Amino acid sequence: MEFTFFGTSAGTPTKARNVTALALRLKREKNWCLIDCGEGTQHQLLHAPYSLANLAAVFITHVHGDHCFGLVGLLASASLTGRKAPLTIYGPAALAKFIPLTLELTDTYLCYPIEFVDVESLDQDIEVAGFAVSTIRLSHRVPCHAWHFVERNIAHQLDQEKLCQAGIEKGPLWGKIQQGEQVCLADGSLINGRDFWRLDNEARSIIVAGDNDQPELLQQAAANANVLIHEATYTQAIADKVGPEPMHSSAMQLAKFAQQVALPNLVMTHFSARFGGEGKFSIRTLQQEAKRFYHGELFLAEDLTTYQLNSKGELSKLKP
Amino acid sequence: MEFTFFGTSAGTPTKARNVTALALRLKREKNWCLIDCGEGTQHQLLHAPYSLANLAAVFITHVHGDHCFGLVGLLASASLTGRKAPLTIYGPAALAKFIPLTLELTDTYLCYPIEFVDVESLDQDIEVAGFAVSTIRLSHRVPCHAWHFVERNIAHQLDQEKLCQAGIEKGPLWGKIQQGEQVCLADGSLINGRDFWRLDNEARSIIVAGDNDQPELLQQAAANANVLIHEATYTQAIADKVGPEPMHSSAMQLAKFAQQVALPNLVMTHFSARFGGEGKFSIRTLQQEAKRFYHGELFLAEDLTTYQLNSKGELSKLKP
Repeated sequence: MEFTFFGTSAGTPTKARNVTALALRLKREKNWCLIDCGEGTQHQLLHAPYSLANLAAVFITHVHGDHCFGLVGLLASASLTGRKAPLTIYGPAALAKFIPLTLELTDTYLCYPIEFVDVESLDQDIEVAGFAVSTIRLSHRVPCHAWHFVERNIAHQLDQEKLCQAGIEKGPLWGKIQQGEQVCLADGSLINGRDFWRLDNEARSIIVAGDNDQPELLQQAAANANVLIHEATYTQAIADKVGPEPMHSSAMQLAKFAQQVALPNLVMTHFSARFGGEGKFSIRTLQQEAKRFYHGELFLAEDLTTYQLNSKGELSKLKP
Repeated sequence: MEFTFFGTSAGTPTKARNVTALALRLKREKNWCLIDCGEGTQHQLLHAPYSLANLAAVFITHVHGDHCFGLVGLLASASLTGRKAPLTIYGPAALAKFIPLTLELTDTYLCYPIEFVDVESLDQDIEVAGFAVSTIRLSHRVPCHAWHFVERNIAHQLDQEKLCQAGIEKGPLWGKIQQGEQVCLADGSLINGRDFWRLDNEARSIIVAGDNDQPELLQQAAANANVLIHEATYTQAIADKVGPEPMHSSAMQLAKFAQQVALPNLVMTHFSARFGGEGKFSIRTLQQEAKRFYHGELFLAEDLTTYQLNSKGELSKLKP
C-alpha cells in the first residue's frame, strides 16, 4: 500500500507546498484513489506515477477551496486526455451543485459520466480499488469527514482444518469459498466464504482525515489503524494566538491523541503557509512539538513524496 | 511596459507550461493587470515579482476553464494574504454567476469587495493602472474578446509654441493644462489640456487576444499596436487534421495576418499540449511555420518569462 502527497499546505499554496490532495493505492492494483483535490492537483499529478485514466474514485473531505478547487480542472483534463470510464465522486452534498454548475457556466463537456455520492447518504462501505472505504464525521467550520481505507482481498489460504470441522469436504464448493462467496451447504445452511480464510497478513488500514479540531472523534477507528494522516495546521503556541475559530488541530493536540490510542504511524500534514522559514516558523518546530507527546513513528508529509506501508504494517518514506 | 506569462499551454497544463494567464504593467506603475486566470495562476505568481495586493484589475477573455479555473482560488488567496482593496473583474457575464456561486458553495469569504463588469456592457475605455483598455470581439466556440491596452499618462511637455499661438499666457492655467484638465479661457471658450501637450513618445499599445480562429477581426486595432499576443494553438498541418471545430488559429494563419497589418512584434502563445517534444511536435515547428510568413519580430511565449516593450516600441525578452 502506498500514498503520495500532491499538497501539504493549508489555505494557500507556498513555493514548496501545494494545497491538499493525496493519492492512495494498493501496490498490486492499477487503480488509485484521490482524496481531496486542491487547486493545482492535476499539475502535481504530471510529476507523479498516477494516471487520470486509472483514477478509481475521488473522495472529498469538505468543501473548502484548498481541498476542492482543483476538482473541475482535473475532471476536464481527464476528459481532454481521453478518459471514457465513469467516475464516482464521494463528498459533501454541495459538490453535486458545484461541479455541474461550473461545467455548465464554463462550457466544459466531459467525455465520461460522473456520479456524485453525498457522504451523508452512505450506509455501507464503498468497495473500490481493493479497499473498503468508510467515513468518520469530524469537527470543522463546515461538515467534514475522514475517509477510512481498509485493505480488501488480501492474500489468503483456505482454512482446511476449519472446513473439515464444519464437514465441508474438498470439492467445487472450496473454489467458491476461496473467492469469498456466500455458499449454500447440503443441509441448506448459508456460510460466508471469507469466514473460512486464513489471512497471510492482517488487513491494513489508513485513515485520511480532513480538517478537524477534535482528533478524539477518530478514537474508535484509529485504535486499529496502521496509519493516520491528519492535519497539524499550527504549533500549540500559534493555535493559542489564532484562537479556536479556524477549527484546526495543533501538532501537540494531534500527537497527544495519537499517543493515547497507541497509533503506530502518524503522518502530519496541512501545515499553515507561515511554516517554511526558520526559527519558530520552521517545519521542525511542528516535528519537535509532536515528538514530545508521541512516541510512535512520526512523519511530516512532503509534496510529491511517496510513503509505503509494507505487509507488516511498517511505514517508510520512499526516496523520490 | 512589461508583461509576464503565467501560462502558455492550451487546454491542459504540461510539465513545462501552465494554462493561460498573463501579467501586464507599466514599469512606472506599482499596479498590474491580470489577463485570464487558468488553474495554477496563483502558484505561478509565487515565482514572479507581482503581488496580489497590487493587482489593479482582472480581465477574462472567455469562460473556458483553461482561462478562468484559477480565478476563485486566486481571489481567496488574495483575501487570506490580507488584501482589503476592492477588485474589479471584467469578462463574460457568466463570471457574475460562477464566482459568487463558487464562493457560496465552498464557504469562501473574501475580505475585500469584488465587482463584475460584463464585457458586453462596456461603452467606454476602462482607465486602470495607467492604461486605457478597450475590447475587440473575437471568434471562438463561446463569446470571446481581446483586451487592448493603450498607455495613458505618458511623459509630456507643454507645447509652449502652441500655447502662445492660442494666446494663453504663462500663468496658473498652464498648471491645469499640464495636468490634462479642461480649461475655460478668458473669452469663455473651453480647451482640452491634452491638446497642448507635446508627447515625449507615442502612446504604446498591446493587444492581448483570447482564443480566436479569425485574426483578421483584430485588423483595425492591430494596425496601430506595438505588440499582439495571440494564440497559435496548432501548426497548419495539425489544424487541418483536427478540423475547424475547436475554432483556434494556426501559426501560419496568425503569421500571415500579422505580416499583412505590418505588426512590429508578434507573440504567439496558447500552444497545444502536444507540443513540447521533438520532431513535428517540437515548439520549433510552430516558430518555423510562422517565420515563413511573418518578417517582424517573432516571440514564442514561455512561462514565467518577462518581455519588455521600451519607449521606442522595441520588444525584448528579459533573462529570467
